[in-house]
Amino acid sequence: MKTIFANNRSFDIPTLDDIHSAASRIRPYAHRTPVLTCQALNESIGHQIFLKCENFQKVGAFKFRGACNAVFSLTNDEARRGVVAHSSGNHAQALALAARMRGLSAYIVMPSNAPQVKKDAVASYGGLITFCEPTLEAREYNQQKIVTETGARIIHPYDDECVIAGQGTAALELILEVPDLDIVMTPVGGGGLLGGTAIAVRESCKHTRVVAAEPAMADDAARSLLAGKIIPSVSPMTIADGLLTSLGERNFEIIRTCVDTILTVSEASIISAMRFVWERAKIIIEPSAAVPIATLMDGQMKGRGLRIGVIVSGGNVDLNHLPWAT
Amino acid sequence: MKTIFANNRSFDIPTLDDIHSAASRIRPYAHRTPVLTCQALNESIGHQIFLKCENFQKVGAFKFRGACNAVFSLTNDEARRGVVAHSSGNHAQALALAARMRGLSAYIVMPSNAPQVKKDAVASYGGLITFCEPTLEAREYNQQKIVTETGARIIHPYDDECVIAGQGTAALELILEVPDLDIVMTPVGGGGLLGGTAIAVRESCKHTRVVAAEPAMADDAARSLLAGKIIPSVSPMTIADGLLTSLGERNFEIIRTCVDTILTVSEASIISAMRFVWERAKIIIEPSAAVPIATLMDGQMKGRGLRIGVIVSGGNVDLNHLPWAT
Repeated sequence: MKTIFANNRSFDIPTLDDIHSAASRIRPYAHRTPVLTCQALNESIGHQIFLKCENFQKVGAFKFRGACNAVFSLTNDEARRGVVAHSSGNHAQALALAARMRGLSAYIVMPSNAPQVKKDAVASYGGLITFCEPTLEAREYNQQKIVTETGARIIHPYDDECVIAGQGTAALELILEVPDLDIVMTPVGGGGLLGGTAIAVRESCKHTRVVAAEPAMADDAARSLLAGKIIPSVSPMTIADGLLTSLGERNFEIIRTCVDTILTVSEASIISAMRFVWERAKIIIEPSAAVPIATLMDGQMKGRGLRIGVIVSGGNVDLNHLPWAT
Repeated sequence: MKTIFANNRSFDIPTLDDIHSAASRIRPYAHRTPVLTCQALNESIGHQIFLKCENFQKVGAFKFRGACNAVFSLTNDEARRGVVAHSSGNHAQALALAARMRGLSAYIVMPSNAPQVKKDAVASYGGLITFCEPTLEAREYNQQKIVTETGARIIHPYDDECVIAGQGTAALELILEVPDLDIVMTPVGGGGLLGGTAIAVRESCKHTRVVAAEPAMADDAARSLLAGKIIPSVSPMTIADGLLTSLGERNFEIIRTCVDTILTVSEASIISAMRFVWERAKIIIEPSAAVPIATLMDGQMKGRGLRIGVIVSGGNVDLNHLPWAT
């Protein structure tokens, strides 16, 4: 770990060594996901695209890597007291599963109005759910109450050095498997995946650029980078529901120094890219995962024939409510 | 090739050597598709399932292998006159693409009421389309007319020794990559995929059983095997639209001698298996490809922990009309 100072505070952020350690630590539990290519996609975009399929990861998303690294980095003493998070999304499932694999308790605070399918998923992985009012205050209050009662360790979904190191392992696998990439792309929400990716790529391949993508309707990361400080999202509305959160502090510091560009893209392009990948690459990706591909299909990456790795962040969708349904 | 006699006729059927030759012949053109596993699927079924992903094959289906082998098996003299087929499905696209790769003409007879998306797909691969009335008579009449006018070679979608040999290459790759399979499964329609698979598996792995699956609503193969002669389908109605055709003659002879069992399964189970694979394995499979998986999810394969390879036949679906849409 490396300690950095920003805004009169100090943070630990992971180094490439930490990402290598994370890779060893999670290897027995996480999938080494395949890298797929699709000629129709290459032809449509004009570059060579390598899809690192985290939609095939445990719980259907890269989130498992970070949660798993955080859980297995705890000392035995810490582990005995369990872990806690408030989340209604993929992090909740990932943390519950990782905790079960180590045999410890995962306390998950979920808003009472979370979709039943997500409640069921967390429960199926053995998560101990506390329901609360659907406000940030209620979520944090209940999380703190659990910490006080149990001594459980809070595992933040993205603003956590172990989580960031875990998320970086996907890019590490990608660059080991596909040499000479010109660019590696990820979507950006809280910045866990982008942060880990940026460290892994920047410190291993000096000539590979890291480019992020986010919905124009939730472009807080692009605006934050421009402003030189975190500009939080205010009620963003996007189909890419994994990218609603604002950047974390650690994440911002990493992104500020290691990420070249943050591209933004329209909702229509996200839906159209998602559908194209379903139809032609024959894999299920969620809207958030389609965001980098949408920027490419929109022609935002000039030139031809670049080798571009894309971390396909996840594949959790509700098949009863597809965005192109009429 | 091996010549066999049945019903007072002789047919050529491929041997394992022919399937090896086909594999070399199509290697520069076809994908070596990945084999994927899915823990949720294994847990649901109680066996270890290996999915050979022909949904990732060119044109989105195993059909490309057979068409490609047939096209590249032609002499230069034959090739100059082109190839012809009547088909509204995956074979038409596969033949058009394979012909384009060798630089020869593919004449495709399609019923005028074929879906626009299929007409567009064949045209996009350079197929020369003749539209006709939607009857078998009109299709065969037009096909014969093209043969007379051009000298083109008819490439039957399944009752053809080169096509069968080509389809067998998928199983060959599977058994080379995943040793010690107890069972290899495919769906069965005309019997091209099943026939090629049966030869590849039976002649390479004496201890591996070949099991087929078909919709109960189109169970002509199961009834044919039982009767000891081909019982044609009469207006079958199933969501698995790749499996509507009746067995070919060569195909029946191979299946009669090399296939252990043909299982049948309900429409509801096919839809539910297809949805399970989309949701948990995160890959797009078409209803026909879900048929073997549906028999497994229905518990038709007794015991636990068998190693079962499944050829996932294709992934061509209309995302505007999904079977679980309300």
